[in-house]
Order: sequence, then structure tokens, then C-alpha cells
Amino acid sequence: MSSISGLVEDEISSFFESSPPLKNNEEIVAKLNQFIELNHSCEGGKRRIVCVTSGGTTVPLEQRCVRYIDNFSSGNRGAASTENFVKAGYAVIFLYRRGTCQPYCRYLPDDPFLECFEFPDAKNIQVHGSHSEAVKMAVMDQQAAVAEGRLLKLPFSTIYEYLQMLRLIATVLKDVGPCSMFYLAAAVSDFYVPWKSMTEHKIESGSGPLDIRLAQVPKMLSILRSNWAPKAFCISFKLETDSKILIEKATKALQKYKVHAVVANELLTRKEEVVVVSSSGNVVVRRDNNKPESIVEDNLIRLIVDRHSTYIKESHT
Amino acid sequence: MSSISGLVEDEISSFFESSPPLKNNEEIVAKLNQFIELNHSCEGGKRRIVCVTSGGTTVPLEQRCVRYIDNFSSGNRGAASTENFVKAGYAVIFLYRRGTCQPYCRYLPDDPFLECFEFPDAKNIQVHGSHSEAVKMAVMDQQAAVAEGRLLKLPFSTIYEYLQMLRLIATVLKDVGPCSMFYLAAAVSDFYVPWKSMTEHKIESGSGPLDIRLAQVPKMLSILRSNWAPKAFCISFKLETDSKILIEKATKALQKYKVHAVVANELLTRKEEVVVVSSSGNVVVRRDNNKPESIVEDNLIRLIVDRHSTYIKESHT
Repeated sequence: MSSISGLVEDEISSFFESSPPLKNNEEIVAKLNQFIELNHSCEGGKRRIVCVTSGGTTVPLEQRCVRYIDNFSSGNRGAASTENFVKAGYAVIFLYRRGTCQPYCRYLPDDPFLECFEFPDAKNIQVHGSHSEAVKMAVMDQQAAVAEGRLLKLPFSTIYEYLQMLRLIATVLKDVGPCSMFYLAAAVSDFYVPWKSMTEHKIESGSGPLDIRLAQVPKMLSILRSNWAPKAFCISFKLETDSKILIEKATKALQKYKVHAVVANELLTRKEEVVVVSSSGNVVVRRDNNKPESIVEDNLIRLIVDRHSTYIKESHT
Repeated sequence: MSSISGLVEDEISSFFESSPPLKNNEEIVAKLNQFIELNHSCEGGKRRIVCVTSGGTTVPLEQRCVRYIDNFSSGNRGAASTENFVKAGYAVIFLYRRGTCQPYCRYLPDDPFLECFEFPDAKNIQVHGSHSEAVKMAVMDQQAAVAEGRLLKLPFSTIYEYLQMLRLIATVLKDVGPCSMFYLAAAVSDFYVPWKSMTEHKIESGSGPLDIRLAQVPKMLSILRSNWAPKAFCISFKLETDSKILIEKATKALQKYKVHAVVANELLTRKEEVVVVSSSGNVVVRRDNNKPESIVEDNLIRLIVDRHSTYIKESHT
């Protein structure tokens, strides 16, 4: 593993030093330790643990934040992948943007409380027939995964929260070694306003156009791979709207960050197919058109889990 | 009513001409006409109709939008006000940002499907005791308001959608005259990137800092008051993080846009108190500290409804 350059390391240190500290740091660490204890020290076999990141990060433009820059991301990919990882026997740390799609909830209608339920009398609640499977999945399957200690949900909003939480998780997962995985589906901002150069109060309107200068967010993937969790299996994502540059950019990311695979997806076709780019070549993964309920994540997670198995085997030899 | 300047009018025309058109324009118009027909032409008395706007608008930075600027707004104010308007006998058009707080849902926990329900067996769903009132309110009260034709929910995301929908609603409400109200609690962007000057594809990262120039969104309040719905009662909102400039800015807005009142609120204390600024003076409205369930909107809507009653009486003389 080549170490990262001093310049990148300086940028990363300076990012964390200037970030507003996590409010519930200790609570998160306690939850993570308990989760790993339960899943990776259990008698009769250690479960694999994956950290799935999901949704977009916000970048505040003001310290007392009224305005922010956001990345479009419904969180569907992360939520559906989480379900598939649980099904494949993994314990999942679901690091998600507050308000985005939750595992087991993708068949719920947009406005579930208005559309799914009714009270035939003031004491008994019923689920409308057409939504009964969706509600059962959202409630039963999700609760079962959490109750069995297979799913830990941790929410974030800002880029500062996201990167600090990712670092915490990586640190705690270090001992899990090759059995741990990072599946980085979150849409992380490329640009931000450094906290210290940010205005405290709401930017005033009324005086013509507004010019904003955004700095680049240091690429944390390098340090995740080299320092935070060097033995973990690591999958990153590349989303583009322009199919012409997608594979080229994914390939560059693979080489630059030395991740084990990059999942390349295009905005318009991302629910139909993705390309898994890795050093062993590019594999197109499609959703199964013959099954109406099929989603691309069914086949994608199957492939990723296979690759992870090979990686674990190779690490032990 | 003084007419707005030609310059502002030009800016507004140019904003709408360059906006991507609403996809479901006809469906929205049909819903609005049906709602107004039901509530304002009913035999035995015409109901007052209020359009409550709620949540923040997004400003895309790319045409195939990956990144956008957003305004922080949970939508709590608009949702709680909507409930109080329904209680006061109004029919409410709730124009809300997708994903923000819904009327009757404010007591639900963050993750309702994980926390509120259980299936004791595969056929029967139950609500956990501690959340039973919250779920009943979210389901029964909300469904009753919609079923009785007292609540019409219309979602938006972008500033383009918001302003086009607001114009549609104003046009349809014109005939309702002084019995109509606009209660503009949405956090509307002050700045945007004009659609035609926007890049089509995702802005590329990797080449240093990013400079963004944002144009001012033309102030639609002027044209709402002067052209779209000149007879409607009109309440706007001013949010600041700096209490020193809040009342001054609210007073300026009152004079500039000739609205009937401006509700001034400060980010940190907005759930405890607001100041209603109008030509008859400033009134501080607080939540009732003696009642734990009390919210500032209980007293705020009582005051606004009184003012609206006076306005209707004066319009008829």
C-alpha cells in the first residue's frame, strides 16, 4: 500500500481540525462497539460487516446555517443494497443522510400515513390491502434486522458529520480486517466552504449577484485506504450525467484511490444497469428484466459479495 | 395599489420564460379548480381559502441536476399552521417542499416505521402504546381533512416549480377575492442560476476551487400583490439569524411589498416567539408556556384569522 502524499495529508488534517465537532460522538462510538462486539466476536463464526453510505452530504454556506449546497441523491441505491447485504448474511452499518430512503421502505408510497393506513374505529389500525406487503416489509423486515443486531442506522446531514462519522467507523472496524467492507454509495460533495472562512450570519440579499468561492473537499478515499482501514474491502461509486466520460473517470478513480472496485453509474440509466470497474476488467450488471420486482442491486450485491469472498480467501493465504 | 416597476416586471417575465415548464400543469389546475369549487361555491356559505407555502426551494446548479443550493427549512411552521387553519374553518392549499414536515405528523418519531408499529402476527398490525396518539393524528386527522375537501397537498422541489405553482394558485384564487389568503412560510431562495446560463452536465471537480455566480431571484411578492391576487390577504415571513436586524428588515419588507403583515422570526427562538409586523404596530406572539403541548402557531393563527376577518369586513364596506 503506497502511502498518501504529505500535501493530501495536510489538507485532510486541516479539514478535520476546522470542522465543528460531532455532537454525539460518544454515543456513536458506544453503538459501534456494541454492534461489532455482537457481530464479530460471536461464538461459532464471525459475521462480515459492511458500512454502506447513502444519500448526499450538505455543505453549509453560513455557520448558523440557512443556506447550503446539496447533492441530489434519493438514497435508493444505499437502501436497496443494505437489504441485499443483510440477506447475504452481512451485518450492515447504514450511514445515511437524514430524510433519504430507508432500507425495506422502497415500496411505500410517497405519503405513507395518508395512503397506507386507516382506523376503522378509534382503537384499531388497518393497512389498506394494496399497501399491505409494502408496510409489512417496512415494519417487520426492518425491525427484525435491527432487533437481530444485523442493521445499525446512523444519520448525518453535513459533510463535516459524514466524514467524521466515516472516520469513526473505519477506526472501529480496523480489527475486523478483511471481513469488513466499505460500500461508499453516498454522494459526497466535491466542494465546500471551509468553516473558518464562512460567514456567521445569513448572507444578505438585495445587493446584486452573489459570488461564492468553494474549496475542494480533500479526497478522503486515499486516507481511508492507506491509514484508516487498509485491510477493508473497499467499493466506491462514480456518478456522471455524461456517459462518454463515465468509464474513463471510474477507471481513473480505481487507479488513484486503489479501491477494489468502482461502481460506475449514469444518472438516467442507474436503475437499469451499472458497470463494475476493477483491475480484473469491467462487468456490466443489469437488473433482471424478466422479473418485475427485480432491481439492479440484487445482481450487484451478489457480484460484490463474491468478490469480497475471494478477497478474504486471498488475505488468509 | 401601486403597480410595480417595468424593470421588475421584465425580470419576472424573463424568469418564467426561461424556467423549465411544470410537468403536471393540467393535473394541478384540475385539482385546484375542484378544490375551490367544493369550498367556495358550496351551498350555505363560502369557506375561506388559504394557500400555505412551506419548506425550502432548491436551486439547481446543473440542468441535469446533481448539485443544488437549498434553504434550511423543516417545514414545521407551515405544517403546524395548516392544522390550525383547518381547525379555524379554512380550506388549505398546502404547497410544500417534497420530504418536509407534513400536517398532523409533527409528533411522529424520526423513523416512524421502525418505532411506531409492530406485527404481532403476519396479519395484524398494532401501534406501540407510546406512539398511539401521534399515529392516530397522522392518519385519522390528516385523512379526515383531505376527505372532507379541506386540505389539498401540492409538492414542489425547485424554485422554478414553486413560483410557477404559486402563480397558478393565485390565478385560480382570484375569484375568491378577500376571502382568500396567502400565508407564505416557505423559505424561498434569494439567489439562483438562470436556467439558460446553466451548465448541462455535472460540474467537474479536480481542477481547483469552484466559483459560482448567482443572480437574484426577482421578488415575486410585488407581482403577487399587484397583479396575481390583488384582493387576497397576504402574510409573508422574514427569517434572520441576527436579531438586531430582524425587525428593521421585516418593516422594510412590509413597506416594499405592501403585504398585510410580516411574521418576523429568528432562527434560534422561532419555536418560542415571533413578531407580527403590520401597519397597526408590532405584536409579539408567544407559545403558551403553561401548556406543554402548546406551539407558537396556536396563538399566531388565532391572530392572523382575526386580522383576516377584519380585512374581509372592511373589503365589503
